[in-house]
Amino acid sequence: MKISQLVGTRFKETPAECQIESHILMTRGGYIKNVGSGIFSLFAPAKRITQKIEAIIREEMDAIGGQEVMLPVAMPASLWKESGRFDSVDSALLRFTDRNGSDMVLGMTHEEAVVHLVRDAAPSYTSYPFMVYQIQTKFRDEPRARGGLIRVREFTMKDAYSFHTSQEDLERYYELCYRAYERICTRTGIPEVVVVKSDSGMMGGKVAHEFMLLADAGEDSIVLCGSCDFSANMEVAECISEQPVFDDSPLEEISTPGTKTIDELCALLSITPDKTCKAVMFRKNESDEPVIVFIRGDLEVNETKLRNYLKEEIHPDTAHTDDVAYGFCGPAGFTAKAEVLFDRSLKGLGGLVTGANKEDYHYKGFSPGRDGPGAEYHDFAKTYEGAVCPACGNRSVRIRKGIEIGNIFQLGIKYTQSMSMQYLDKDGVARVPVMGCYGIGVGRLMASVCEASHDAYGPIWPMPIAPWQVQLCALRSDEEIVKAAADTLYDTLLREGVEVLYDDRAVSAGVMFSDADLLGVPLRVIISPKTVGRGVVEVKTRDKSFSEDAIIGEAAVFVKTLVREILDKYAPV
Amino acid sequence: MKISQLVGTRFKETPAECQIESHILMTRGGYIKNVGSGIFSLFAPAKRITQKIEAIIREEMDAIGGQEVMLPVAMPASLWKESGRFDSVDSALLRFTDRNGSDMVLGMTHEEAVVHLVRDAAPSYTSYPFMVYQIQTKFRDEPRARGGLIRVREFTMKDAYSFHTSQEDLERYYELCYRAYERICTRTGIPEVVVVKSDSGMMGGKVAHEFMLLADAGEDSIVLCGSCDFSANMEVAECISEQPVFDDSPLEEISTPGTKTIDELCALLSITPDKTCKAVMFRKNESDEPVIVFIRGDLEVNETKLRNYLKEEIHPDTAHTDDVAYGFCGPAGFTAKAEVLFDRSLKGLGGLVTGANKEDYHYKGFSPGRDGPGAEYHDFAKTYEGAVCPACGNRSVRIRKGIEIGNIFQLGIKYTQSMSMQYLDKDGVARVPVMGCYGIGVGRLMASVCEASHDAYGPIWPMPIAPWQVQLCALRSDEEIVKAAADTLYDTLLREGVEVLYDDRAVSAGVMFSDADLLGVPLRVIISPKTVGRGVVEVKTRDKSFSEDAIIGEAAVFVKTLVREILDKYAPV
Repeated sequence: MKISQLVGTRFKETPAECQIESHILMTRGGYIKNVGSGIFSLFAPAKRITQKIEAIIREEMDAIGGQEVMLPVAMPASLWKESGRFDSVDSALLRFTDRNGSDMVLGMTHEEAVVHLVRDAAPSYTSYPFMVYQIQTKFRDEPRARGGLIRVREFTMKDAYSFHTSQEDLERYYELCYRAYERICTRTGIPEVVVVKSDSGMMGGKVAHEFMLLADAGEDSIVLCGSCDFSANMEVAECISEQPVFDDSPLEEISTPGTKTIDELCALLSITPDKTCKAVMFRKNESDEPVIVFIRGDLEVNETKLRNYLKEEIHPDTAHTDDVAYGFCGPAGFTAKAEVLFDRSLKGLGGLVTGANKEDYHYKGFSPGRDGPGAEYHDFAKTYEGAVCPACGNRSVRIRKGIEIGNIFQLGIKYTQSMSMQYLDKDGVARVPVMGCYGIGVGRLMASVCEASHDAYGPIWPMPIAPWQVQLCALRSDEEIVKAAADTLYDTLLREGVEVLYDDRAVSAGVMFSDADLLGVPLRVIISPKTVGRGVVEVKTRDKSFSEDAIIGEAAVFVKTLVREILDKYAPV
Repeated sequence: MKISQLVGTRFKETPAECQIESHILMTRGGYIKNVGSGIFSLFAPAKRITQKIEAIIREEMDAIGGQEVMLPVAMPASLWKESGRFDSVDSALLRFTDRNGSDMVLGMTHEEAVVHLVRDAAPSYTSYPFMVYQIQTKFRDEPRARGGLIRVREFTMKDAYSFHTSQEDLERYYELCYRAYERICTRTGIPEVVVVKSDSGMMGGKVAHEFMLLADAGEDSIVLCGSCDFSANMEVAECISEQPVFDDSPLEEISTPGTKTIDELCALLSITPDKTCKAVMFRKNESDEPVIVFIRGDLEVNETKLRNYLKEEIHPDTAHTDDVAYGFCGPAGFTAKAEVLFDRSLKGLGGLVTGANKEDYHYKGFSPGRDGPGAEYHDFAKTYEGAVCPACGNRSVRIRKGIEIGNIFQLGIKYTQSMSMQYLDKDGVARVPVMGCYGIGVGRLMASVCEASHDAYGPIWPMPIAPWQVQLCALRSDEEIVKAAADTLYDTLLREGVEVLYDDRAVSAGVMFSDADLLGVPLRVIISPKTVGRGVVEVKTRDKSFSEDAIIGEAAVFVKTLVREILDKYAPV
């Protein structure tokens, strides 16, 4: 294709609304255009990239026995009522009413739709296991769309669903899919992926993993270990503090007028936050009942862990209750009506400062085991940089930011049971199949690769997903000798099946190269009066790792071979 | 793929909710599953067919310089407010409010979205012409979804949009696209397509064509000529009646008690409907003002023509107005407050029976030219079987049913102007580009092919879009010699790049062949103890036009060659 025909403009200025690199570069490069909050249109270069990503995903899904199907974007709410998620999922599920007054939803995920599709289609155990997948548009009414294609409301997703006659078979297939995801990451050129255990959230099920690209622009906090290969999403990572040092100083009430925060308390008493015990208040969504978590003052409550412990939705408490001395709560003598929980960071500690449950007073010398109401300890804390690794026991926990590219879930029978899917086993007994699901966001994968692979001038697309394999830059194509050589090379490369973007515009080298940088095509071929004078073309990689001259007459073969060699580097081992 | 792994069941019973053949056969064959009114999921065979159709469409769009892009399914209503269609389009446009309270719509067509995408992307005349297209999900909240995939609410569509600096250039490109559509029809194996002039409806613009498959299941009425190649959609087809015979009998009031319909009147007076003049009442949607059309009693009013004449939306009048003698209206002495229009079928006629504008009375001997209020005549009538062809003048108009597979529109500047898209011409003057748009419904195309190409036992898919090219039926695969031969042939065909569905189930020949009929794979290869005994396999076409034995060792080459030969038949000339 000639660049003069490519619809889209490229520019230098950083758009005001863009915060992260992939959003900036893909806007500046004419890949995407924002249509509304979290909604984008794709120009041809982005569409070409997503098509290549989709082709790789398809191959890997087909290779593990997947069958591509198509489920609806808009579907009757009745399906989501069957599974119970119509009520349990928050307003990210877009609900609307059609012209006939029927309740509808826009698919944000398709467990319900896929069970509807297959529940009568596999009546016998002989049909199992099977996996169906689709690549389809989804809509998730995110409150805070941000970061270009990283967190959007409308997106293209590959979602796969497998069905099994046993948990063991699900686990066997889950492992297959895990490996397929690793191959997808390798083949699409994502440089640094970690796979972390994650919370299954609204999806249900127990075991879940996320494929994470480490990137500062990520929204997820990933827990890694500096000493071993442990990794987990912050949401589920166990928090283990260093060995506590017990301090048996006696409990003593102290006056702390107007000192409501841990920071104020530490400043007043010249102590560090880990020498305090603080209260964090929540409320249960359904009953509005208060929940109070006592935790070491330097730690934060991990809401996911708390939610999973309580088995219900909670939110931070902002309402005030008369019987609570806000800012002065402590476990000793706490009598307000609330569910009281203790984080295990407090276990074995002593000599802490904590609230005395009356305005303007704290205790010092508090020891939870000695002075507390005698409670069980549970893990409710967010882990932290330098915490103890749950795997190797070293104090080597590291926190990194990551972008979730894919996720895989062992769903169990949550959907198949609620939606009455059954098959007959060998003995003619009706059984409920076990289910797994496996997602990858196509647009987010594209943006993530850009996040991970760019320089100040533009994206550096890995060859397997690049919008074109080669960008042919003809400088001074008004000179007949340049134009003739460039045209011939262009035609030859096309004939050889190489994907070429040809720039024969009458623009300066500066404009031509800055456009080429923004388009991020991995291989660049430059023809100019100077190179033609030497009988060669210049062949360079976008990442600057390679630069060589090729004799004009041999350039097509040279370039084609190079494309092939670079592609081969992305083959999974 | 082995058929035992294919998700989906096939059955004999005609589902109660299915009226037309494609719906019946594609439900019975495990292609589609109804999710809700006008919403379907696709099983793997249907998904494979649509992917092949999409690949053909892509090739043809790329061949005429198209660039594939991606526009959103859900978009801000503000775009549709810019173009004015948020108000002008009826409730087929699904409107909803997102969690932030913003008005949104689901795209039923994407003129607004595409102008939003490209309006800043082609600032100079040098970028023109260009065409962008997408293959994307659309939602149209049809009041009456019916006929399986023929009239649905959610569907996959290829929609293309071209932009030009002149009407002439649009016309040149329109012609290119017209030819591309013809090639798409040929290549996807649609047997009988007529291209008809059509109304541009809510799309705007003047010239529009529809690509119609002639089929009894179709919802559109197509006007053809038995003598020449004239064709048009009923909506726009000119109605020319035979030469009128003037009858100068005098106007005379007659008593017709309780005779409100043309049928009753004809029975009472022993005349035929063409000897009457009837009144058809409408109301303007906006002003509620009544509109009355006088027309020859045997003809019907074509609402599209009336709408286009009035340049506003109308609906049949169901309200009653005091000053109108319903059932007894006629042009002579009609004084009620209404816009009065005359269809040209009345021109030059005499001796008609028509209402006398008072309860229980008609006139006979009415002659519009002599006794009417002196009006202009316009063409408001639906044409009819045996009417005069507007092209050749013969009384040879034929009416057929058709399914609209694709449509192309010369939109003009309706969207580019209202949405402020401009470019600078050679002289630096800002101008508004001229636009065309070009749609094809992918799922409807699939169902239409099934409508046109099936027998009592199932679809007969044309080779280029068949879910598989070859179905390999191994009868008695429990016999080692059969299984060995079939497995070898299967492996060889796969290696040769032939798409094979392999049936090695332990089922009867009856079940195996009726499944194969439902799956409609164009080429069938049968291996059984009998054929192996003769050292051959049987090779048959699904349409029964071909049946031959091939020597087992040569069968792979034989089949591969046959597939290639059959594919070649669908190459455009």
